[in-house]
Amino acid sequence: MKSAYIQLCGRFARLANLNGAAAMLHWDAAAMMPSGGAAARAEQEATLSLLAHEMLCQDEVADLLHQAETAMDHLGLWERANLREMRRKYAHASALPGTLVAALSRAGSACERVWRTARANDDFATLCPYLEEVVALVRETAAAQAEAFGCSSYDALLSQYEPGMSAVDIDRNFDVLAGYLPDLLDRVLARQVAPPAAPERLEAAIQEGLSRHLLEALGFDFNHGRLDVSLHPFTGGVADDVRLTTRYDEADPLGSLYPALHEGGHGMYERGLPPAWRLQPVGQAMGMAMHESQSLLIEMQVCRGDAFLRYLAPLLRDRGGVSGPAWDAEGLARRVRHVARSLIRVEADEVTYPLHIIHRYRLERAMLAGDLEVADLPTAWRMGMAQLLGIAVPNDRDGCMQDIHWMDGAFGYFPTYTLGAMAAAQVYRAAEAALPGLSGDIVQGNFGRLMKWLGQMVHSQGRLHASTDDLLCAATGRPLDGTIFRQHLEKRYLAG
Amino acid sequence: MKSAYIQLCGRFARLANLNGAAAMLHWDAAAMMPSGGAAARAEQEATLSLLAHEMLCQDEVADLLHQAETAMDHLGLWERANLREMRRKYAHASALPGTLVAALSRAGSACERVWRTARANDDFATLCPYLEEVVALVRETAAAQAEAFGCSSYDALLSQYEPGMSAVDIDRNFDVLAGYLPDLLDRVLARQVAPPAAPERLEAAIQEGLSRHLLEALGFDFNHGRLDVSLHPFTGGVADDVRLTTRYDEADPLGSLYPALHEGGHGMYERGLPPAWRLQPVGQAMGMAMHESQSLLIEMQVCRGDAFLRYLAPLLRDRGGVSGPAWDAEGLARRVRHVARSLIRVEADEVTYPLHIIHRYRLERAMLAGDLEVADLPTAWRMGMAQLLGIAVPNDRDGCMQDIHWMDGAFGYFPTYTLGAMAAAQVYRAAEAALPGLSGDIVQGNFGRLMKWLGQMVHSQGRLHASTDDLLCAATGRPLDGTIFRQHLEKRYLAG
Repeated sequence: MKSAYIQLCGRFARLANLNGAAAMLHWDAAAMMPSGGAAARAEQEATLSLLAHEMLCQDEVADLLHQAETAMDHLGLWERANLREMRRKYAHASALPGTLVAALSRAGSACERVWRTARANDDFATLCPYLEEVVALVRETAAAQAEAFGCSSYDALLSQYEPGMSAVDIDRNFDVLAGYLPDLLDRVLARQVAPPAAPERLEAAIQEGLSRHLLEALGFDFNHGRLDVSLHPFTGGVADDVRLTTRYDEADPLGSLYPALHEGGHGMYERGLPPAWRLQPVGQAMGMAMHESQSLLIEMQVCRGDAFLRYLAPLLRDRGGVSGPAWDAEGLARRVRHVARSLIRVEADEVTYPLHIIHRYRLERAMLAGDLEVADLPTAWRMGMAQLLGIAVPNDRDGCMQDIHWMDGAFGYFPTYTLGAMAAAQVYRAAEAALPGLSGDIVQGNFGRLMKWLGQMVHSQGRLHASTDDLLCAATGRPLDGTIFRQHLEKRYLAG
Repeated sequence: MKSAYIQLCGRFARLANLNGAAAMLHWDAAAMMPSGGAAARAEQEATLSLLAHEMLCQDEVADLLHQAETAMDHLGLWERANLREMRRKYAHASALPGTLVAALSRAGSACERVWRTARANDDFATLCPYLEEVVALVRETAAAQAEAFGCSSYDALLSQYEPGMSAVDIDRNFDVLAGYLPDLLDRVLARQVAPPAAPERLEAAIQEGLSRHLLEALGFDFNHGRLDVSLHPFTGGVADDVRLTTRYDEADPLGSLYPALHEGGHGMYERGLPPAWRLQPVGQAMGMAMHESQSLLIEMQVCRGDAFLRYLAPLLRDRGGVSGPAWDAEGLARRVRHVARSLIRVEADEVTYPLHIIHRYRLERAMLAGDLEVADLPTAWRMGMAQLLGIAVPNDRDGCMQDIHWMDGAFGYFPTYTLGAMAAAQVYRAAEAALPGLSGDIVQGNFGRLMKWLGQMVHSQGRLHASTDDLLCAATGRPLDGTIFRQHLEKRYLAG
């Protein structure tokens, strides 16, 4: 007779395979699927969601968890952490009826489909009822989980993406940011020199070649992954088959390279997850804040720094045939570190980005609490952008309709971007301390020591630690500390 | 309370969505997946197979089928046919234990993975144990189904691909073919003129543009499908999102166009299946013989005929920039209708193709019966090729290792290729009779009337008819009749 723990491992491996299949379909929908396939795909995705939910919620799972938890003496450190993560997944799933899971999956797919056209047409009125449906189902989901977990609705949603984090933690961090960032932004804008014009166009094929070259330099293994195109760059797939995407604009080569590097950071995390635990909950990434920390560590901390730009400039010259002041290391620095009040989150610099996030965090909390109705979102959006970023929003397309997250039902996700930016600064400082001469490596395009250190300290740890703070303590000596991010911004944008 | 029939429809829709997800993954594995993703994908596919199997085999399904079958009075024609197909699927699944389904899925994935390398290295010894494992599991599968259905093992396997067909039917047809084809082949070879040399190379991008143009001319809707590249061209995906593949060799433009047209024929069948029955068993294609009849009707009957070549020649000249005797309609005719004793099935002409199939049919029956061991397959392959095609096989790569089917556990599939060729000739003759002036349409690249007729007579019928013969009776006035195929070959290759 197999132990309860071993039986659970079998069930969770099956669940991981089902979720892996769903992850591939999700990538396909964004990178490959013709638009006419969307309705059929939505049904496939809803079916897989529902099956995964049913698989988790079976009475046998509850029984086996109970048995395994009362016989933990023989389990090692990883097994215990695995059991903890199994319990967490069970708790999340069993708080929800399957009908609600399937309804949210379908409503999210329908809303996302309508959104693609409505956004292009700047037509919030058409989108509104679909988003209302999603918000209603998200409220229902959050309420059910809040009751089961004995926490607030927002914390319940947040815990899907960032276990152990609460709105109190976020408020503490975001209040500090909202306190110093507007002033810091004014000072940066006052001293910043306009970046040199770069009229050169670079063929998409050359940009793709450069992206692949840089990803290979990071250590990304194309035998276990791909790089394709999607409207919004993202990382999908599974740890053994990581699907990165970027997008190509011939007038803006850096606009494909930096997303590719960002997704490469995500991809290296996925690839570095502990192979022995591939299909178990403990073998997954810690949470979305740590995931974002790995992409931002590469994109922001490393690749917008001087050392990387000294490596990049000759590469662009030799492979892209570009030259002149916009393309040397100094010109690139002024371009990739240019700060501006802007409308679009995904194009924002690292100084203003947290303000975009705080804006969304406040709105989604208000929507969830019932203090803001979807119909009033465009107005609330304009007010918040004026207040936080000092910018007027000319239309909804570049306003409250710009992001996919809410359309797809992802409430509680946005904060992890900025928590990730903070963690990135903290982890990179620890890496620099641990690896003397690191910037010399990077000038040479040698990322081996950095990636090995990240692999050991972060990637290979999976979900061994109970929370992001625990992982950060082990990797950097302290829990999440926003002062390091602030110091990073001040040093990069105000010093010298 | 929903009727038993309605409840079954819900369950089968869910099953169709699960199978649709699996179909997308299968396409991805062949067209997109990096090789390092194969092991993880095999586990995902095995999990989906097992889930589908469990979903079908639930006791409730048996109960609901029984209830629905005893209350059929209120059901219409399509509903009754749907119930019949539900019963057929249930019977197939419930004859097998889930462990066997998962084991065969895994063994097929493993064998296919090894085969890709072993074939490249002409290394049958490495492949042999993997194929032995597959054959052992296929024998077990066939035996279990044979017992449940009260038929022979081979008929049990065949019924997965071609319901209602038996080895007796195949023997009758194949014995006739094996009787006249060798002599017909000799006569064709004796009178055939060598085709003109075509040294021109055509860039892959131009070939792709031509393939897309031709597929659009056929009526294939790229809003509901894609055309990509895979080692072996195939049609995958689901009816609302049909994924075609071909392959490009710059030295052989016709070698991409004809596979694209062939897969386009399959794709048009999928796209034309009855929309109201998309997720129900009755909404699926009749069987693999009818499926192949639709691809071969396009590829062989239409696109290797004179009328099509008069349309194709100016297209190749204008879009491909080619000219000279190899590229006019007459030169093309000699090239696309060139007959030769050859080693490779997928490159074989329509005269020798059935001999390749008869060869495989005999071998797979012998393997299944235990009269031929896998280890002896290379020898048996050489003997059969010498006897049936009069050709010496120089290695296993171009011999018994050339096809993917057996590797993947698909025994009982090969005969449907030649049954499909016969059906194609029969259906096309009926179309020509029903549509006066059809060849004039085709010279103009106008496939509308033909595709509409095929849509009405074949595609939109799904599995309304109980067997391929019934569908052929309705569409052409008689069951499968091999004499029409023979007349087609004699007219095209020996007349004039």
